[in-house]
Amino acid sequence: MLESRLLRLIADRSKNLGPLVVVGPGDDCAALRAGPDSALPANLLITVDQLIQGRHFTPDTPLNAVAHKAIARSVSDIAAMAGTPVWSLATGALPPSMTDSDADALFHAMHAIARSFDCPLVGGDLASLPAGAPMVLTVTIAGTPHPTRGPVLRSTAIVGDAVFVTGSIGGSFTSGRHLTFEPMHLQAVALADAMGSRLHSMIDISDGLGRDAGRIGEASEVCLRIVASEIPLHPDAAGRGPLACAGDGEDYQLLFTALDDGSCPAELPGGVRVTKIGRVERREKSAPACVIIDDKGRAHDASALGWDHA
Amino acid sequence: MLESRLLRLIADRSKNLGPLVVVGPGDDCAALRAGPDSALPANLLITVDQLIQGRHFTPDTPLNAVAHKAIARSVSDIAAMAGTPVWSLATGALPPSMTDSDADALFHAMHAIARSFDCPLVGGDLASLPAGAPMVLTVTIAGTPHPTRGPVLRSTAIVGDAVFVTGSIGGSFTSGRHLTFEPMHLQAVALADAMGSRLHSMIDISDGLGRDAGRIGEASEVCLRIVASEIPLHPDAAGRGPLACAGDGEDYQLLFTALDDGSCPAELPGGVRVTKIGRVERREKSAPACVIIDDKGRAHDASALGWDHA
Repeated sequence: MLESRLLRLIADRSKNLGPLVVVGPGDDCAALRAGPDSALPANLLITVDQLIQGRHFTPDTPLNAVAHKAIARSVSDIAAMAGTPVWSLATGALPPSMTDSDADALFHAMHAIARSFDCPLVGGDLASLPAGAPMVLTVTIAGTPHPTRGPVLRSTAIVGDAVFVTGSIGGSFTSGRHLTFEPMHLQAVALADAMGSRLHSMIDISDGLGRDAGRIGEASEVCLRIVASEIPLHPDAAGRGPLACAGDGEDYQLLFTALDDGSCPAELPGGVRVTKIGRVERREKSAPACVIIDDKGRAHDASALGWDHA
Repeated sequence: MLESRLLRLIADRSKNLGPLVVVGPGDDCAALRAGPDSALPANLLITVDQLIQGRHFTPDTPLNAVAHKAIARSVSDIAAMAGTPVWSLATGALPPSMTDSDADALFHAMHAIARSFDCPLVGGDLASLPAGAPMVLTVTIAGTPHPTRGPVLRSTAIVGDAVFVTGSIGGSFTSGRHLTFEPMHLQAVALADAMGSRLHSMIDISDGLGRDAGRIGEASEVCLRIVASEIPLHPDAAGRGPLACAGDGEDYQLLFTALDDGSCPAELPGGVRVTKIGRVERREKSAPACVIIDDKGRAHDASALGWDHA
C-alpha cells in the first residue's frame, strides 16, 4: 500500500480529536495545547518519522550518518511549521547481526546529534529483531511554535501568494547529501521573525519539490504554479533539468508561500538563499494542485513527479 | 544485547538534559516542563514502546488484539507515574504480506482504542518492510501528571514503606491475558487522590513482579522484601506458585510503596483489590534490590526471576 494512501486513512479518521488538538494528522507536525482544559493557543508541535535500513539508507551507511539522518529528518518537520525543537524520543528495532558496540555507537551518535539540535533524547526503547530483518528506527521530536507567528500550516496558502524555496534542490539521494543535510529550523524561525503573518504556508521538501508543493495546493485548495527555469538546482544534480530535480526527494529545503510585497528576505541565516519560483493561483475542481511550467510554456502536473515510499 | 543493558546506556548518557527535563530516561515516562523557559513543575509525561511481531505477539494474533496491546502498554506506563493519558502517536513498519485492508483495520483499531483511553492519535507514520521482516509498531503516549501529587517515580521509595500490588499476577502471556489487559491509569489516579504525598514510588509490572520491584529498589537504593505467600495469584496461573508467578511478565498491574499508616485504599475503581505484600528495608551495598521470602523463610534474589526481552 502506498504510504500516502495510508496516511490519508489516518487523517480521514482524525476529525474532532477534542479541545487539545489544534492541528491533527495531515500536516508536518500535530499542534497541541498544553492540556485538555487549556484555553491557550498551540504550545507544542509533535512529529514522528521512521527510518528503515534498505529504504532510507543502505546497509553499508556509517552509523553516524544513519543517526544524523534519523534526527535531522524530524527536526526538518518541526522547521516546516517554523518551530524550535525542544526534546526527542528514539526507538530502535535492531537486527541480531548488530553488535553491542554498534548499538551503543548508534545511540551515542543519536544522543549527541539530538543535543546539537537542542532537542535532547529524553526517552526511548530498544528491541531486537529476528535474523534477516532490517533495522527500524523511529524519532519523535517535540517543538515549540514560533512565539508570535504560531504554527505555519500547509493549508493556509492564499491566491496571489508568491511561492519561494530555500537553498537549491536535486540529486540529494544519489549524491549522499540526504545523509548529511542540515535541517532549516533556524532559517524557518528567522523567516517567521521577518515576515510574521505575511508568511502564509510552509512545508519541508522530503518527497520532491513538485509533490510537496502539491501538498500545500491540496491542503489549501489552490494551485501552485511554478516556473521550471526559476527552480534553483543543486550542483549535485549535475546537468539534470529542473523537472527531473523537482521529482527528486530528500532535499529538506523549505517551500513556502507568502505575500508578494517584497518583504521576503533574500537570504536567511547561514547564507541560505531564498528564491521566488512561482505563484499561487485559483484551482478549478479536479485540476492539479501544483503545475510546473517548462521552457515551452507547457504545464506539467507535479503529482506525476517525485516518489512515494512504496 | 539485553534491552536492560541498552536502556541503561541511554540513561547513563542522560545527565544534565537542561531545564526542560524534570525526569529523564530510566523511569516509566520522562517528565517534562512546558517549555525551556518555564519555571512550572513537570506538566507532561511522555513514554514510547515498541511492539514486535513474533516477540510481543504471535503472527496469528487478531489485529484488534495487537492494536489493543500496543496502546494499552503505553497507557500502563503513564499509569505507573499516576498520570492521565492525553494524546498518542503511532508508527507501523509493515511487512509486504499485509494487505491494504489489514493495514487499514489495524490503524482503525489503534485509533478507536486510543480514543477509548482519551488519548487520541494525533499523528503517525507508516512504512513498508521487505519480505520476511516482522511488523514493528511503536506507540508514544503523552500524559498529564497528577495535579497535586505530581509524577510518582521509581526512585522515591523510603525505608519503612509498605509494598503493595493491585489485582493479581501470573500466567498473563500463556493465557493470552497480555493481549486484553486493562491498564490501571484510573486506579493510579484514584490512588494518588487518596494517598497524596504518602504514595512514595510506583511502577507497572511488565517484566515480572520480582524484576520490576527490583527496579524500584535499585532506583531508590533500598531493598523491597516481599513475602511470597502474600502475593495475589491470578486464576490463569493455575497452580503455579508465587515465585514462578513473580517471574512471569506482562501483568500490567501497579506495584507501589507507600507510608504504612492504614491510609491505602483496600479497593480501587473497577473493584481492583490492593494487597500489601512486603516492606521496604535498608539495602547493604551489593545486596539484592528485591528479595522474595518463601514459606521456609528463604530469601530469593528477585533479579534472578522474570525475563528480559532478549
